[in-house]
Amino acid sequence: MRSDLEIARDIQLRPIGEIASAYGIPDDALEPYGRYMAKVDHRLGTKAEGPARGKYVMVTAITPTPAGEGKTVHTVGLSLALNKIGKKAACAIRQPSMGPVFGIKGGAAGGGFSQVVPMEDFNLHLTGDFHAAAAANNLLSAAIDASILLDNPLEIDPFTVTWRRVVDCNDRVLRQIVTGLGGKANGVPMETGFDITSASEVMAILGMSDDLADVRRRLGRIVIGQNRKGEPVTADDLECAGAMAAILRRAIDPTIMQTTEGTLAFVHTGPFANIAHGNSSIVADRVAAHHVDYLVTEAGFGADMGAEKFFDIKCRASGMRPDAVLLVATIRALKMHSGQFAMVGGKLPPELSDENVEAVRLGCSNLEAQVKNVRKFGVPVVVAINRFPTDTAAEIALVQERALAAGARAAEISEVHGKGGAGGEAIARAIVAAAESGEADFSPLYPDDMLLADKVKRLAHELYGAETVEIAPAAAKTFATLEAQGYGHLPVCVAKTQYSLSHDASLKGAPRGFAFPVREARLAAGAGFVVVYAGTVMTMPGLGRTPAYKQVDIDENGEVIGLF
Amino acid sequence: MRSDLEIARDIQLRPIGEIASAYGIPDDALEPYGRYMAKVDHRLGTKAEGPARGKYVMVTAITPTPAGEGKTVHTVGLSLALNKIGKKAACAIRQPSMGPVFGIKGGAAGGGFSQVVPMEDFNLHLTGDFHAAAAANNLLSAAIDASILLDNPLEIDPFTVTWRRVVDCNDRVLRQIVTGLGGKANGVPMETGFDITSASEVMAILGMSDDLADVRRRLGRIVIGQNRKGEPVTADDLECAGAMAAILRRAIDPTIMQTTEGTLAFVHTGPFANIAHGNSSIVADRVAAHHVDYLVTEAGFGADMGAEKFFDIKCRASGMRPDAVLLVATIRALKMHSGQFAMVGGKLPPELSDENVEAVRLGCSNLEAQVKNVRKFGVPVVVAINRFPTDTAAEIALVQERALAAGARAAEISEVHGKGGAGGEAIARAIVAAAESGEADFSPLYPDDMLLADKVKRLAHELYGAETVEIAPAAAKTFATLEAQGYGHLPVCVAKTQYSLSHDASLKGAPRGFAFPVREARLAAGAGFVVVYAGTVMTMPGLGRTPAYKQVDIDENGEVIGLF
Repeated sequence: MRSDLEIARDIQLRPIGEIASAYGIPDDALEPYGRYMAKVDHRLGTKAEGPARGKYVMVTAITPTPAGEGKTVHTVGLSLALNKIGKKAACAIRQPSMGPVFGIKGGAAGGGFSQVVPMEDFNLHLTGDFHAAAAANNLLSAAIDASILLDNPLEIDPFTVTWRRVVDCNDRVLRQIVTGLGGKANGVPMETGFDITSASEVMAILGMSDDLADVRRRLGRIVIGQNRKGEPVTADDLECAGAMAAILRRAIDPTIMQTTEGTLAFVHTGPFANIAHGNSSIVADRVAAHHVDYLVTEAGFGADMGAEKFFDIKCRASGMRPDAVLLVATIRALKMHSGQFAMVGGKLPPELSDENVEAVRLGCSNLEAQVKNVRKFGVPVVVAINRFPTDTAAEIALVQERALAAGARAAEISEVHGKGGAGGEAIARAIVAAAESGEADFSPLYPDDMLLADKVKRLAHELYGAETVEIAPAAAKTFATLEAQGYGHLPVCVAKTQYSLSHDASLKGAPRGFAFPVREARLAAGAGFVVVYAGTVMTMPGLGRTPAYKQVDIDENGEVIGLF
Repeated sequence: MRSDLEIARDIQLRPIGEIASAYGIPDDALEPYGRYMAKVDHRLGTKAEGPARGKYVMVTAITPTPAGEGKTVHTVGLSLALNKIGKKAACAIRQPSMGPVFGIKGGAAGGGFSQVVPMEDFNLHLTGDFHAAAAANNLLSAAIDASILLDNPLEIDPFTVTWRRVVDCNDRVLRQIVTGLGGKANGVPMETGFDITSASEVMAILGMSDDLADVRRRLGRIVIGQNRKGEPVTADDLECAGAMAAILRRAIDPTIMQTTEGTLAFVHTGPFANIAHGNSSIVADRVAAHHVDYLVTEAGFGADMGAEKFFDIKCRASGMRPDAVLLVATIRALKMHSGQFAMVGGKLPPELSDENVEAVRLGCSNLEAQVKNVRKFGVPVVVAINRFPTDTAAEIALVQERALAAGARAAEISEVHGKGGAGGEAIARAIVAAAESGEADFSPLYPDDMLLADKVKRLAHELYGAETVEIAPAAAKTFATLEAQGYGHLPVCVAKTQYSLSHDASLKGAPRGFAFPVREARLAAGAGFVVVYAGTVMTMPGLGRTPAYKQVDIDENGEVIGLF
């Protein structure tokens, strides 16, 4: 079998301007970055442009295994299949972090015959937006520490500073550090740490903004900590938000690339869905939706994670209304959800390839829960069974039956990984039927004017299956403070494990009866949400014993090898 | 008076492909980055291309004040003036670090009517090479710490690790930090720190390499510390250099931009000249020199700093032979070198605008020393007097007289800042006369096969004016170890203050009789030199009380304002 990189290399790439032109995006709205990438002016999709003509389809998944369900593959693949059946379609996905690229998984550009190409550009730097986000984030950090050292005119209380530095690398030793050692010339010693760039509020701001002016305003609202009176101190107070906006002035423009079948792909921002809001940008979706019949956009991890944040955070802010959802499942992951299997040395156990209808039956509890979770937002759901050669007819039939019983509008086999768009015509037709049915009646799960704790409780009870919610005193205090400061209307962004509907990665299927722990809450005033940490959540991954970087190199022609 | 940014904004920019084409650089050798920047294939200038046709002119300066002598202005301006008198010319300069851009000085794209444009792209990100260098640098850091934590198969002695992380920001609190706190999951606690990206050996490797394959080999040779037996541990031992090369595969291609007069400018790599080797890349100079009659390249700070490293490090490696040197001086800086004036609140004192022939006379000792320093490398020198409105005829005449007496081939007034190329015809004609005279007979100051300590001593005695050289025991031990390990043939790269010929910034003019202290030495095996630290040298700047970032913002059109 050819690797993703080998398949990608064989694609006859077309100049990106030609691809854009076929969608009616004019050349003067593009800034080329090499021959096969361009930034497109985000103003093609500001609110002033009015509602977009394209149908809006979001791709989510069951609770995934670490091997992934093929969600990016299906975001790309569904857009290919929609083109195959006569709909002008594009996809919108997130830029990958180089942390995981060199840490555990190699590339993230889709896979097989449903990829975004060139995959090495996609996976390495793209057009530099991650770097810009980190530079803006870290300038603010330096500004904070310099201000504290140099007379502290804002009377910042050093112990309240929550703003952390970021780096786009899996670097565990930076999670908890002490800075400012070595005497006064080196600043005031502080306990702090680095998060991965995907977790930066700056990244979230790029994803949530309407335009560059909105980026500027949101940057100014960032709260970095408190002064000695307990009042919030912002990036505007530090006179730093203007420079941050200057650093980010091109990062608000989405990047366009092409798929393995020469259709259009938008790539923009890269917040993780476990520790951040997990969706590509609002501006990318808006620009795209103005130029297609169908826009297929991705939300990270399972439907309790990225999809919930898509509905409650992204659509609440953008005003865009989804018409249909594709929910991806694999038979092997459903078997894992039976609870009868365990990972072996970081890999899925080989017995998953054997027919095991009973395991599928047990594991379908997760599929049912996630289908029902999406239905609670009023949007019709199509289940895509991401077919593997070892899946049997009995297993597939069972999944289809259970999906429909849970409320899916359709459940179809998909082979977009192996066949590209031609392998996804069944899901494409089902999505078109769902989107054109007019069934969609989107609403978020909770109103703005609910208490922050109640918002979390609603998510925990209605989506995650929790019996009780245990809010730690520190979190309760933060909620109260934020509500008193006027931030109570914001949505919540739950940071929890992506490997369970619950907060505990070991609980498979559709766990019930557990107590959902809320450990800590942190305001992201610029992004426009309150991040709520459930259980222990790492905001900086680490490198393992067999890191992906060891496989990566360049060959004698200067081409990248070893990205998967 | 219009600001540099305002002047730059009024320039009618031409598509970068048109500019390149006028120099015979074909379109298929370019990767566009927006409309006005492109990366040019570095293979247009590999050694295999043979000697270049263009004359090779380096621009240096007297020992500068913090306000600068106008060296970048003259690198750009001389190339404009050469075009004006009928020579096809281009300039090659370094990419600026965003640290100083937001720290002390605003922009670094030249100034007035001798600028590289668009100056906001030049100063912010350019084409992302700094970010790529930092990402490669920091991946290696993460790999080192992960390897130590996870069984330490290479038996790295944690106390010997000299590889530090980098960030492109003036962030003093990162100079000295402790990482890996919070328990075993967060790694092994270590004392370490961040340097600014300009100081990274990865940056130096980009600048010193012949091509991408050479980058890969040099990355593999990086020594990060020692194992428990005292043997060097390399990036190749960590199996990390391949991924680093993949991260850097586009960063080895120089960026081209245009000047205020539509001529070609190469911008590539950005090592500081005080703490690193201080020159733009070898590949940029090679590609450029193949496409011009005259290439004007810049070396950072005074002739004892960047110019010495240009000759002893860069030209030694590249085999390129300089034909002439332009040495820039301002009357105001020469007055400062009299030792009769002091900086006032970080600024030059206003009395420098008053005629003061006696101060100029005293300060000319620095000009003389720097002219003689350049002459020791066998290259003819033209002095450019960067004219200010307050300079008087008597002051200028004195400088010309002293420059010629010290061995300069000519000393001409330059007004390229205010008039562009038209203000530099005198220096251009003098440079052409010098370059075409055949006088140049370049040789480095010391041979490869001299002891490391003796190389430093030769520099200290012959260029800096030291009476004695005091090599600290730690440095002597490092020299001995490096010589035993086979690194003794490498050139030395002295890290010292840029504000004095000596190691002490307070010693102005041409100090004599001082003892030059060598505190520490560090191998840069990939870059191909040994960095020698004289006195206390900061490898991470800090932000001051009036940082430049506070002025920077975006306007209602999304344009950057406040860069100078």
